Amino acid sequence: MNTRYLGIDVGGTKIAAGVTDPQGRILAKAESATLAGRPFPEVVRDMAACARRAMEMAECPEEALHAIGIGIPGIAENETGTVIFCTNLGWHDEPLRRELSQYINKPIYIDNDATVAGFAESVAGVSRGAKSSVFLTLGTGVGGGIVIDGKPWTGAHGVASELGHVTLVVDGIPCTCGKAGCLERYCSATALIRRGQEAAEKHPEGAIARAALGDPARITGKLVIDCAKEGDPQALDIFHEYTRYLAIGINNVISFLDPEIVVLGGGISHAGDFLLDAVRSRIPDFLMFKTMPYPKVELAVLGNQAGIIGAAMVAKSIIQEGEAYASDQDR
Amino acid sequence: MNTRYLGIDVGGTKIAAGVTDPQGRILAKAESATLAGRPFPEVVRDMAACARRAMEMAECPEEALHAIGIGIPGIAENETGTVIFCTNLGWHDEPLRRELSQYINKPIYIDNDATVAGFAESVAGVSRGAKSSVFLTLGTGVGGGIVIDGKPWTGAHGVASELGHVTLVVDGIPCTCGKAGCLERYCSATALIRRGQEAAEKHPEGAIARAALGDPARITGKLVIDCAKEGDPQALDIFHEYTRYLAIGINNVISFLDPEIVVLGGGISHAGDFLLDAVRSRIPDFLMFKTMPYPKVELAVLGNQAGIIGAAMVAKSIIQEGEAYASDQDR
Repeated sequence: MNTRYLGIDVGGTKIAAGVTDPQGRILAKAESATLAGRPFPEVVRDMAACARRAMEMAECPEEALHAIGIGIPGIAENETGTVIFCTNLGWHDEPLRRELSQYINKPIYIDNDATVAGFAESVAGVSRGAKSSVFLTLGTGVGGGIVIDGKPWTGAHGVASELGHVTLVVDGIPCTCGKAGCLERYCSATALIRRGQEAAEKHPEGAIARAALGDPARITGKLVIDCAKEGDPQALDIFHEYTRYLAIGINNVISFLDPEIVVLGGGISHAGDFLLDAVRSRIPDFLMFKTMPYPKVELAVLGNQAGIIGAAMVAKSIIQEGEAYASDQDR
Repeated sequence: MNTRYLGIDVGGTKIAAGVTDPQGRILAKAESATLAGRPFPEVVRDMAACARRAMEMAECPEEALHAIGIGIPGIAENETGTVIFCTNLGWHDEPLRRELSQYINKPIYIDNDATVAGFAESVAGVSRGAKSSVFLTLGTGVGGGIVIDGKPWTGAHGVASELGHVTLVVDGIPCTCGKAGCLERYCSATALIRRGQEAAEKHPEGAIARAALGDPARITGKLVIDCAKEGDPQALDIFHEYTRYLAIGINNVISFLDPEIVVLGGGISHAGDFLLDAVRSRIPDFLMFKTMPYPKVELAVLGNQAGIIGAAMVAKSIIQEGEAYASDQDR
């Protein structure tokens, strides 16, 4: 029987579950709405239902399933299988492994969604083959995923790679996390929206205000970047400011970890080469010394698939390590 | 014959070489002045002379010597054995391995002094037994050493763990490296001296000015902290500001890597529990959420020995990994 893995991606909007082969190729997947705010057991029941449908479509019997990985927009503790903290879903100290085990009794591993997506890129995406990589999701917030020696690194207490909440400006803009000056406040879509709204108010005749039909609530990160692409001076100022902060943030990644490659994902990364070229051109401005070697910077390629692939591959990585450890013990 | 390792610690002021056993215990050591600014070959000749003297004192014949490690206050490339960058010694692209090999023909590994000192603590010091740790040297500058999975992590291009040059304040105080707002500008002895000098100028009757006998050039980090220990209000303000920045910097280490333990070394760490208690009490102010688990913070215990021990143990670690790799290839 072929070995299969199951990846479940739980977001604030939707649940997606998929069956993969050992190389991380998705064989079938199923989705449903998260309807965040519902009681925890109801969300888990739907996760199990999506998983079952994906398994049916992939003709994957339970015996073929080696392990299950779950990516969550928060922080998990793998020793206990508990979600410690997950703001979008309103989860605090929820026993996710225990709850899901009632439906499918297989080894279950839970990890942060950005960690999982970053690992997916390193198994089957743009950072494939790199032994070390750092992934940044540029979305409503900013998430981080770290791969070291080919394995996801989530820290000694499961709270590593929270790159959106690294302080970039001491006493800077207040953050939703309660701190101030977090990278997320300067490098997320939310940052582009805030600056776009300020520009639209100041320049009601400008491209941003016009593209938003005069309604500040219509301003998105994409809208601001599209206006910048068209050469609007206010939008370009915002974009330059944004890419400068991002280049400083990437330089901090370099000074900390110096991975082989830094990967940019999330909604803002869909700006493509316009973003990538701008960020790449700013990085040398913030190197410690001019001739310093440094990681390449690339765009993520797996898009929405990264959640399922990464969750499945994290589960595979952990279970294989456990097996290697067990076989070491046998010697 | 007993296996021995040689550790060489090259600083801006002195060269120290020591022979260790496989557990990192120093059997004998020898020192001489660096006299920085001399031609590169002369410094290397003196490194070799120190090494020879330590070997004689330890009754360590060349055959017993397994490998040599060198800690430098800069950045090295281990593939080529080149020192890329070492400001204090005025070295740029110097072939340190090739030059030293003329005197002692053994495997030679070169690494950053803070990386080496952090690894020493994880082999034989306060972080002994921890699989992951981050070491911060608080001296004239700020250095960093990262240990992951029990091994020193220096990055894919050898430029990782430069924690002193992580941007803490975008557009902050200009740094010697050419960037602005580097952590080093807020968390080094130099930061304490700068703020101490400002305070002494503003309050010529204050404890700092009096302790410095009215001479700003006499103000050291230790002097400012000693005045704070005695309760001087200006010195306490500076100390509180300093420990706040340091707590934010340590929180950045947590958000990035979440090691088992964060170790504080370097001259400022000699302030002991006065520093440690203050830093520990500030860390919870900057956690992402209140109940977040996080690493313990401890003071380094190996002091000046860390350079020799760490250099020797890094060499041991790399050569053993190479042997494990070679034996894997043999299978």
